[in-house]
Amino acid sequence: MVNDMMMNVIEISHPGNHDVLRLTQRPIPRPEPHEVLIEVAAAGVNRPDIMQRKGLYPPPPGASDTPGLEVAGTIIETGKAVTRWKNGDQVCALLSGGGYAQYCVAAATLCLPIPSGLDLMQAAALPETHFTVWENVFRRGKLRNREKFLVHGGAGGIGTTAIQLAAALCNVQIFTTCGSERKCRLCRSLGAHITINYQNQNFAETISQRTHGRGVDLILDIIGAPYLQANIQSLAVEGRLIIIAVQEGHRSEINLLPIFLKRLTLTGSTLRSRPTEEKALIAQELEEHVWPLFESGQIRPIIYATLPLSQASEAHRIMEQQEHFGKILLVP
Amino acid sequence: MVNDMMMNVIEISHPGNHDVLRLTQRPIPRPEPHEVLIEVAAAGVNRPDIMQRKGLYPPPPGASDTPGLEVAGTIIETGKAVTRWKNGDQVCALLSGGGYAQYCVAAATLCLPIPSGLDLMQAAALPETHFTVWENVFRRGKLRNREKFLVHGGAGGIGTTAIQLAAALCNVQIFTTCGSERKCRLCRSLGAHITINYQNQNFAETISQRTHGRGVDLILDIIGAPYLQANIQSLAVEGRLIIIAVQEGHRSEINLLPIFLKRLTLTGSTLRSRPTEEKALIAQELEEHVWPLFESGQIRPIIYATLPLSQASEAHRIMEQQEHFGKILLVP
Repeated sequence: MVNDMMMNVIEISHPGNHDVLRLTQRPIPRPEPHEVLIEVAAAGVNRPDIMQRKGLYPPPPGASDTPGLEVAGTIIETGKAVTRWKNGDQVCALLSGGGYAQYCVAAATLCLPIPSGLDLMQAAALPETHFTVWENVFRRGKLRNREKFLVHGGAGGIGTTAIQLAAALCNVQIFTTCGSERKCRLCRSLGAHITINYQNQNFAETISQRTHGRGVDLILDIIGAPYLQANIQSLAVEGRLIIIAVQEGHRSEINLLPIFLKRLTLTGSTLRSRPTEEKALIAQELEEHVWPLFESGQIRPIIYATLPLSQASEAHRIMEQQEHFGKILLVP
Repeated sequence: MVNDMMMNVIEISHPGNHDVLRLTQRPIPRPEPHEVLIEVAAAGVNRPDIMQRKGLYPPPPGASDTPGLEVAGTIIETGKAVTRWKNGDQVCALLSGGGYAQYCVAAATLCLPIPSGLDLMQAAALPETHFTVWENVFRRGKLRNREKFLVHGGAGGIGTTAIQLAAALCNVQIFTTCGSERKCRLCRSLGAHITINYQNQNFAETISQRTHGRGVDLILDIIGAPYLQANIQSLAVEGRLIIIAVQEGHRSEINLLPIFLKRLTLTGSTLRSRPTEEKALIAQELEEHVWPLFESGQIRPIIYATLPLSQASEAHRIMEQQEHFGKILLVP
């Protein structure tokens, strides 16, 4: 049906600022045996797309050079080895690239059903942040009941997901940093207990005061270098710092003494370059533990803006200027 | 019997270099209900004793200000709540301080029997390094079969213990750094597979060559700042860096990118300030998993020098000048 046909995609014409994103036409891709072809209803915009656009985060070998790490849509073709899905199934999927397009291919094991009660648009906002938060906060960070959890950038896609999942799955005290009073208020509505406006508050001081000097057990960080010292200072004994992005820089000074005196753990991860089988394990756990929370209404996708695919450049501008609260979607 | 009697001890007359250690007399301590009083046959000398002597590592609250974190000897009095031990039992013990003395008190749960086949002198060399290596390499570092393990300072007490335990308990490839060819040879005799003389070899380069660029899975570090960058560079994907001391400095530059791109873990721990119950768990595991290795002859204490207690100052000098291979003991 779709052989040799062309589709609209966004391409990165060359590394640069948001206006290098251009609408163009490319052939519709064909699924490999373990892949499906999806007619995209909506694609999520994520920070790594911006890094890729700047030329700082090249796609892994074999991945499309079209940006876009997540979509939701309808399956219109299945590879020979695919058994779970059939044409017409609606899914959302984690991709290694290629989401900013009318059609994309996805590994069958990285497709998930649309949680009942959500539409395709909402579901497009789920994969990237939920895979990331599940892997880093629950698997790697091992967040446990009665712990204190600090989420940096609570207003972003990762932040809103981390706050909601922590509040729904654990009995924890949630701290978060945001850039405005309005964003702080919205984070509290999602389940954050203590919000810190980083424009006028020092987060390490607030955490020290509010924990009586004890500190927090787990920090999910996306800022990097400028927060490193204050993050280490804010961790309790046996605390864990999970770094998943370094939006404000990656070179920092570090004092190693607290690492062993407080028995801290500094770690982090990215998903994109990992083998499909490892990501498929995360998909299974999301479907089992997290999808029911959407179905029961305990958590919900937070969508800030939905723009036509042709306005990908504007979507990046919004994200870079931190105007958003939650996710930004593109509709082909 | 020993009430109100005096004993010989080493005191730190004031913070300073090795000659501030002075033989003096103090009252023999009395055991608390969960403690035993030990007549010391030998006390081990450890790096933290040197830090304490320099005024950089104060004893935790309640601990003796006499240096000495381990002894072996004979129990001559037991606290009311002690059931496992009786007068005349020979034990080795992990202490929070007070080991450089004729007598010391120890928590009953931190005493271990003398492994059969070893004498009291040899057993005095065991507690500090074995508690430390067990906690950091096996519990915290989770060394597993088929991994590659780098031990920095292979010739010291921690190093000789880590090499022997890793070789005896796991099927791993062991890399180690030492300061001379002779020490490299001795480390190979203990089970190290690849030794690196840091006087004339760059360890990160050697590891990259010998692992075909893959790196090692676990690093046990005692050096700190000057090795941080090369340690991070030498870790494989999902590698762990365990820092237990910072002999050459604690302030360093760090590049955070490899932390999440390679999914690394930086952590570490010290034992001394931890609750007795936590250390008692380590004692139980040592008795179960490690003491049998002494009894079967698979591992052995490596003792470089045995000096009279009055020569504690000379013992510190030897350790600071890195003349030793293995442990140094003091005999009251």
